[in-house]
Amino acid sequence: MRLLLSHPEVEIGALTAGGNAGRRLGEFQPHLLPLADRVLEESTAEVLGGHDVVFLALPHGRSAELAAQLGDSTLVIDCGADHRLQDADAWDRWYGGEHAGHWPYGLPELPGARDALRGTTRVAVPGCFPTVSSLALAPALAAGLVGPDVVITAVTGTSGAGRSLKPHLLGAEVMGSLSAYGVGGVHRHTPEIAQNLSGVSGEPVSVSFTPVLAPLPRGILATCTAPLTGDGAQAREVYDKAYAAEPFVHLLPEGQWPTTKATLGSNTVHLQVAVDADAGRLVVVAAIDNLAKGTAGGAIQCMNIALGLPEVTGLPTTGVAP
Amino acid sequence: MRLLLSHPEVEIGALTAGGNAGRRLGEFQPHLLPLADRVLEESTAEVLGGHDVVFLALPHGRSAELAAQLGDSTLVIDCGADHRLQDADAWDRWYGGEHAGHWPYGLPELPGARDALRGTTRVAVPGCFPTVSSLALAPALAAGLVGPDVVITAVTGTSGAGRSLKPHLLGAEVMGSLSAYGVGGVHRHTPEIAQNLSGVSGEPVSVSFTPVLAPLPRGILATCTAPLTGDGAQAREVYDKAYAAEPFVHLLPEGQWPTTKATLGSNTVHLQVAVDADAGRLVVVAAIDNLAKGTAGGAIQCMNIALGLPEVTGLPTTGVAP
Amino acid sequence: MRLLLSHPEVEIGALTAGGNAGRRLGEFQPHLLPLADRVLEESTAEVLGGHDVVFLALPHGRSAELAAQLGDSTLVIDCGADHRLQDADAWDRWYGGEHAGHWPYGLPELPGARDALRGTTRVAVPGCFPTVSSLALAPALAAGLVGPDVVITAVTGTSGAGRSLKPHLLGAEVMGSLSAYGVGGVHRHTPEIAQNLSGVSGEPVSVSFTPVLAPLPRGILATCTAPLTGDGAQAREVYDKAYAAEPFVHLLPEGQWPTTKATLGSNTVHLQVAVDADAGRLVVVAAIDNLAKGTAGGAIQCMNIALGLPEVTGLPTTGVAP
Amino acid sequence: MRLLLSHPEVEIGALTAGGNAGRRLGEFQPHLLPLADRVLEESTAEVLGGHDVVFLALPHGRSAELAAQLGDSTLVIDCGADHRLQDADAWDRWYGGEHAGHWPYGLPELPGARDALRGTTRVAVPGCFPTVSSLALAPALAAGLVGPDVVITAVTGTSGAGRSLKPHLLGAEVMGSLSAYGVGGVHRHTPEIAQNLSGVSGEPVSVSFTPVLAPLPRGILATCTAPLTGDGAQAREVYDKAYAAEPFVHLLPEGQWPTTKATLGSNTVHLQVAVDADAGRLVVVAAIDNLAKGTAGGAIQCMNIALGLPEVTGLPTTGVAP
Repeated sequence: MRLLLSHPEVEIGALTAGGNAGRRLGEFQPHLLPLADRVLEESTAEVLGGHDVVFLALPHGRSAELAAQLGDSTLVIDCGADHRLQDADAWDRWYGGEHAGHWPYGLPELPGARDALRGTTRVAVPGCFPTVSSLALAPALAAGLVGPDVVITAVTGTSGAGRSLKPHLLGAEVMGSLSAYGVGGVHRHTPEIAQNLSGVSGEPVSVSFTPVLAPLPRGILATCTAPLTGDGAQAREVYDKAYAAEPFVHLLPEGQWPTTKATLGSNTVHLQVAVDADAGRLVVVAAIDNLAKGTAGGAIQCMNIALGLPEVTGLPTTGVAP
Repeated sequence: MRLLLSHPEVEIGALTAGGNAGRRLGEFQPHLLPLADRVLEESTAEVLGGHDVVFLALPHGRSAELAAQLGDSTLVIDCGADHRLQDADAWDRWYGGEHAGHWPYGLPELPGARDALRGTTRVAVPGCFPTVSSLALAPALAAGLVGPDVVITAVTGTSGAGRSLKPHLLGAEVMGSLSAYGVGGVHRHTPEIAQNLSGVSGEPVSVSFTPVLAPLPRGILATCTAPLTGDGAQAREVYDKAYAAEPFVHLLPEGQWPTTKATLGSNTVHLQVAVDADAGRLVVVAAIDNLAKGTAGGAIQCMNIALGLPEVTGLPTTGVAP
Repeated sequence: MRLLLSHPEVEIGALTAGGNAGRRLGEFQPHLLPLADRVLEESTAEVLGGHDVVFLALPHGRSAELAAQLGDSTLVIDCGADHRLQDADAWDRWYGGEHAGHWPYGLPELPGARDALRGTTRVAVPGCFPTVSSLALAPALAAGLVGPDVVITAVTGTSGAGRSLKPHLLGAEVMGSLSAYGVGGVHRHTPEIAQNLSGVSGEPVSVSFTPVLAPLPRGILATCTAPLTGDGAQAREVYDKAYAAEPFVHLLPEGQWPTTKATLGSNTVHLQVAVDADAGRLVVVAAIDNLAKGTAGGAIQCMNIALGLPEVTGLPTTGVAP
Repeated sequence: MRLLLSHPEVEIGALTAGGNAGRRLGEFQPHLLPLADRVLEESTAEVLGGHDVVFLALPHGRSAELAAQLGDSTLVIDCGADHRLQDADAWDRWYGGEHAGHWPYGLPELPGARDALRGTTRVAVPGCFPTVSSLALAPALAAGLVGPDVVITAVTGTSGAGRSLKPHLLGAEVMGSLSAYGVGGVHRHTPEIAQNLSGVSGEPVSVSFTPVLAPLPRGILATCTAPLTGDGAQAREVYDKAYAAEPFVHLLPEGQWPTTKATLGSNTVHLQVAVDADAGRLVVVAAIDNLAKGTAGGAIQCMNIALGLPEVTGLPTTGVAP
């Protein structure tokens, strides 16, 4: 909503909620001053119908039915997981239940993705970890620089966990501490990363993914490594070529490493590559704001593409730092 | 000094410094209230001579000469890097200049290390990253569970960088941000980790090591993975056996993952293991307080062993949380 | 419990809980490694009976009945609010319901308080804000240096709010933000501060008290001001005299200002005084760890006095920093 | 620069620096992606001449000469202290040396200030603490609600101290700690606050001001109290009336208290008032982003007024949260 408020082609319609329907937005989000007195409505087709674009962020398993009720004249952008995975068995294994089918995948910087988004009325926006991890490793895999066996450790701020009231997310627990979770390949973003990287690589890519919780509100820094199989000396050129024309993916000058703060509030990915000759591995470090390019900003980028607007409309490339 | 103050067999003698010699300790370390009015002296053999034990934390290349002046009747515990590496070429490559030789290595939990520490008058205390990384991976390598090709991403609080006045360590830069540094195998702790793990494994171990800076004062959480070559179902038993008798290394109950805060101020390592069957990797996550077991606590543990005191004397196993 | 574990005269008996009875302590408090496998019991007189000392930290209105069941042979130390206020009307106004009566007040550094604690079997431990605020202002009021009209702004870490699951205490909300709460004299610690300061002053003291929530886990820094009515030049001497013999209250050297971190984990109060001649006010800044001297450490200090042990037994004066 | 980049009427000209002249902006400010490759120039009249607007942020004592060289056709907006104080003696006491004279004061929301800014070619932008403190107390003083004797405790993030390399500003020192500084009325923002409030009140206002450093990058929360002399029941109406038409000053709904995060990155002030009948004081709590409305945003607001643009042009009222 913060980003949509400054989007020149958007007028904000109904704001809806789950348990908080009926309450003022300003109670929860006082930073959205221009919308503070808006009252949250129920997330129903009655309320949402009639809008040109609807963004959904629902518990999984709920968006397909609502999208069907909204019909094909509405651009439905699903920030949830329901339509990200292509494989029904993978859906069943990782989420359980019937697969709702897959929609055009909202990571325009992946090969072929942008074409599928043009003119679509359905978008499945990726998760925050798949966004940063896939963009970090896709060029190397596409170029055959590395083998299909990647290791990712992604450190994240706590907003990634949403606003659920769990003891380990309390400020007093989080501040001054680091912890791992979803270790051993059990985080639900793992199959999504594997799907993206396998698609780029053309062969199955094995993904070891570990998320780490750190004491900051927002931001993800992913350290991504893979065994070098090609010429490490070409790594920089490969990444430069892959992203030179991308407005939101920024390869930093040699010697400068990404910080999440430089991306705070913006729709950018900052990344850097290195070759570890001793270990025979490529290391890519990438930073995003999980609440911007992570999902919400990426969703607006997809909206722009789907509607035929300039892709960068309303999306900042400038972070809020320090 | 905090830990030594509550060590029942220690009387604190001279306190020395570099550029701050001549000033009150309380100016810099007001938390050390019982020592606040002590005046810092010069780090010379004249001042340090006559003590039973001397702890050094000097810029590299400086401890050998001072230790020689102190003679063999003094137990010299070097918290710096000078005597950690066994190989003179490795020293020259990573630090430059002439190798001062290696001393008994102060990580008692490594196979054979404790014996070498008993009765010694010289100890090379390991760095913080090598401590946590080596203890995380040694049992799996020793048991042949994993192959000699490990990937480590270690997230650290900013005290690991000391009190040097660099812009990127300012509070306003650090808070709310994550950054990587020393990427691509260029951090000086890399050869020390490789030395430890190769020693345990019996064959050269390749180490991909990436440190990440996170916004907390102290604490390291290391995510360590290696390709499974043995029976993953035995992983827990291997670690349980390796550390059951160790007073400071704690394998958490199944399902519970380490947090750095649980180790804050204590000499403990908390760790947990998982097998990622899809990726074919073992994942070990380990947490320490870099300013306790990381170096300073480990140094006291080594002192206890060298002097023939009970190893746990004066060393807390209880963290300060939240 | 962390402090009691290193208290040489204490053996820890039953550990009890409310909703978490029946679960392992290590699930919630993994930093208390030596107690991690203890199972929490119900907070009943059956479980608690037979101990020499019982510490209570119950919702208000609940400790009187339990204490009565335990009888006079048990030293009951109430960390809750029930027996702090002397005035039944004040109790009714601020907490509601019938007053349980007042017990000897556990702030030994207040004039007369220590005598009332010797040999007692009942102690009402003060709240964290009253501890730091009362010790900051009592000497000036007792000496007639300032008028009975004080303004206190106390900044606190979030552990002061306990482990209740409220949205505004989530890490993502707390980190990077400051907020005030209980503004306008409505915080329940206000009458307790007024009671303490009025007792010292001999006349009613009016208290303007505002707590501010800041992004750190623990620590309180109170800025306390009052109009100068005496000779400001004597301020330092007044405080020096008041606290010179106190083991836990430390007036910093001139020019050095308190930091909460210097008190972290310790039972100390660090304070400093200044005279603002332009504004005609005395300003006292005082720091504590709210989870140590704030309540838990103070409770053990009172136990020592009540049992006739040396007052400082088992209580650190050394903080954990940085 | 972040704000100017999205200002529709601004084209960014020369960027200058002190010691860092000659280096890429992106080395220091990687979040300003569109300007990352700009090279910093020297802060001389040659470089700065020919621009319509020049923003200065120089060490004190340096802006008058440069402004004179730039001439009257350039709008010079001084973010430093040189031209804030009206009284030469006050300047000499607080800063030392000769007074450069005072310029129209850049806090448009103060009575009369906006008129003085229209069409001016010189603006003295206020400091961050004077901005938030003056706006918090001005309405009550102007309305005669409170007496001229105010107490302010302002908690601030560490960016307020700039990027100077001082040990107490290092991340490891700042995180997990609170500290006071400039206690006893010695902070240089004190006379500026007194000047503003005395101007509003019509009589000398005595100011007790204490800044507190907290572990967050940016944000100020000021708790401002004064003795009630008027009818407290009118407090809300007084503030409502004062700020109803102000685009950047927002009185929160009753029962909701300001958080700095709601203002992060925006040019807004959020405030709330309460009457403490027991203490006989009005309490106003106000939050700003010290790097937005605190100085930089306020500077742009003044530029808009001086140039005759709509005052709100290019200035967000939406914060970046959480």
